[in-house]
Amino acid sequence: MYDKISPTMSKVPVETPKGSALSTPKGFRDFLPADSSARAFLLKKLTTTLEKYGFEPLETPALEFAETLKGKYGEEEKLIFEFTDRGGRAVALRFDQTVPLARVIAANPSLPKPFKRYQIQPVWRAENPQKGRFREFLQVDFDTVGTSSLLADAEIIATAIACLKELGFKNFVMKINDREIFKELPIEAVRIIDKLAKIGEVDVVEQLIRTGYTRTESKVLLRKLKGASLTKRLEGLFNFLEISKVDPDKYAFDPTLARGLDYYTGAIFELEIEGYSGGSVGGGGRYDSLIGRFTDEPTPAVGFSFGFDRLIEAAEESNLLPEYQPTARVLVTVFKEELLKESLYLVSKLRNRGIAAEISLEPSEKLNKQLKYADNKGVPYAVILGPEEVKSGTITLKELSTGEQSSLKENELVRKLSMK
Amino acid sequence: MYDKISPTMSKVPVETPKGSALSTPKGFRDFLPADSSARAFLLKKLTTTLEKYGFEPLETPALEFAETLKGKYGEEEKLIFEFTDRGGRAVALRFDQTVPLARVIAANPSLPKPFKRYQIQPVWRAENPQKGRFREFLQVDFDTVGTSSLLADAEIIATAIACLKELGFKNFVMKINDREIFKELPIEAVRIIDKLAKIGEVDVVEQLIRTGYTRTESKVLLRKLKGASLTKRLEGLFNFLEISKVDPDKYAFDPTLARGLDYYTGAIFELEIEGYSGGSVGGGGRYDSLIGRFTDEPTPAVGFSFGFDRLIEAAEESNLLPEYQPTARVLVTVFKEELLKESLYLVSKLRNRGIAAEISLEPSEKLNKQLKYADNKGVPYAVILGPEEVKSGTITLKELSTGEQSSLKENELVRKLSMK
Repeated sequence: MYDKISPTMSKVPVETPKGSALSTPKGFRDFLPADSSARAFLLKKLTTTLEKYGFEPLETPALEFAETLKGKYGEEEKLIFEFTDRGGRAVALRFDQTVPLARVIAANPSLPKPFKRYQIQPVWRAENPQKGRFREFLQVDFDTVGTSSLLADAEIIATAIACLKELGFKNFVMKINDREIFKELPIEAVRIIDKLAKIGEVDVVEQLIRTGYTRTESKVLLRKLKGASLTKRLEGLFNFLEISKVDPDKYAFDPTLARGLDYYTGAIFELEIEGYSGGSVGGGGRYDSLIGRFTDEPTPAVGFSFGFDRLIEAAEESNLLPEYQPTARVLVTVFKEELLKESLYLVSKLRNRGIAAEISLEPSEKLNKQLKYADNKGVPYAVILGPEEVKSGTITLKELSTGEQSSLKENELVRKLSMK
Repeated sequence: MYDKISPTMSKVPVETPKGSALSTPKGFRDFLPADSSARAFLLKKLTTTLEKYGFEPLETPALEFAETLKGKYGEEEKLIFEFTDRGGRAVALRFDQTVPLARVIAANPSLPKPFKRYQIQPVWRAENPQKGRFREFLQVDFDTVGTSSLLADAEIIATAIACLKELGFKNFVMKINDREIFKELPIEAVRIIDKLAKIGEVDVVEQLIRTGYTRTESKVLLRKLKGASLTKRLEGLFNFLEISKVDPDKYAFDPTLARGLDYYTGAIFELEIEGYSGGSVGGGGRYDSLIGRFTDEPTPAVGFSFGFDRLIEAAEESNLLPEYQPTARVLVTVFKEELLKESLYLVSKLRNRGIAAEISLEPSEKLNKQLKYADNKGVPYAVILGPEEVKSGTITLKELSTGEQSSLKENELVRKLSMK
């Protein structure tokens, strides 16, 4: 996933024939330690930011009744992983986190509103895998449910921007529009206009023609859209962003932004990172009618969803991921089996002091081979406890990148290894 | 999930007819914020401990080819969630994390060995749901692959014990046995003996009789097992545990421990928490042949798996979970819409200082209603910024549990809210 990792820990391509027992189904991935650590690093920053903005964690199951998901996603619905369980029930794998949220809200009417939640779980879509698209991928969602206040929309946008800042991104922009601008257009036309940034004006016009517009009508429509001015709603939203002191470089009105999903009813937004070619890293908007399909109580909502895979790819391209380090700071070697006791005692002391440590699990192995294991793995330090060290009450610490050795007392060792 | 939570945030039972659009399939659960926070609290402690022992994170996909999983789990195999995808491939949901680990090891031969990994993902089993059993549940696994050293077995046991200590459990025991003790018994008999602690001797004898043993043979067998002495392997293992200074109260030889799974080949172990009636909270053992079914290279391994749902249930019963707190420390109220700017500015300052804060999203709402929202949610503090405060450059801080109010300067407010 990113290249500053120790060579042996990087992802090794699964070079086995398709369908063999060693490969995973197309679009499904393993994450080896270096990748998994990078993911954890990014997720930590995201959750910290989301919690600072007062969002609370929510989890929903991987399987829902198929009827819960059906009829909510428009033409995308054909990508749902659906099957019949042993009990004959039609079930489906989580397709996004918004519809499950709507179900949770409807099923738990006593949740205090506004209800602000974040949710970070994998979703499954039977897409044709391509760069940056997988069949199992992680979504990072946050939504505010139960208020139609524009302040909630502004807060969602401010939170998304804060997340990217926290990750270290400098150049990005949240494009903002209002679905109202398209209110007289059929959803098919909106879906085509949504591709404008991706496929360009010429192709959009061709596609509009295919839905029944004349060439002139298509061009007039696009020109009209491009020249559209802020709706009353967006004026209010931009005002809130301004008095919230959100950096004005980080958001902009884009009257051609459409968003493909059916359920948006108000402001819509999409986050783009400059120089990243994989498409927008997230999007969202207001959807005031979706939850009403599960409950009689009208429940307005607004939210945002990061595509985590694109985010990590963009972070990698911008060198925002730390160099991979294995979890262990130090390998405690075993000089000879008679001194195993001393090494075991030391490793347990280090762990009790909060220092991530490994001990050589093959105590009969030659010291050189033990050191090579640590070096291969990228463990920065090794400790040697031989007869001389035991006699003098010291410990030899070897820094593996330089080969430098020092003789330390136990408390000096703990202090040294505690520094990062 | 646990009861020390604010009343409105506790899990609200989904009281809708089965199969309705509001419910989840049987054995599948939502985790509302209080539950999800408790889970995150426990998981944090577990991963910290696992990393201290030098285990590294690994993730595998939710879907595997069905053939990857089939033929590995014995009679349990019938519980696999299996289906045919749109491309006509037989796929299956992750059933445990050991078989996927074996596949990863075989597919990535250059991973340095011993390879120590932890993995924390949901697994799916079509069990008949009952107390403490669900169809989707989280497993916390850690394994050491590529060494047959008994030191690895000892380290796995020491790590599991350290995890429970870190969670705050006092009275528990790791029962340890050796599969060698059963080497002349058919696997059906082993599976029956495995139920000894659960169903008692009388029922075990009855079940053994049904597989062809006479009553006398069954009783002799049990007596012999109970009187069995340590195998050579277990002697070595206990010696390592002793010199690793693992608390001797926390592990014990149990010659009747059997473990149901087919693939164990050496030491086996199971962790029981005293007073917890939901069964063992985890188990594991050595499995030296499983990985060999994916690769020609013989690859010994040993590991352990916590059943996270039982662990959290046991933690709840032992009062080891902190009282639920919403993520926000403070609600910044809006005195009147003309003063919204001041409140927005303050909330963004607090967030920039690392304090989790909410702002009232309905600025036109009466102050009392705003305060009630915070109180309902369990947010401990509210801040009031009225005309007097703005004039005097102070902020009124209200502690919601006591009603106590104080007038603070901004830096005093930050200091106060930063203390937990």
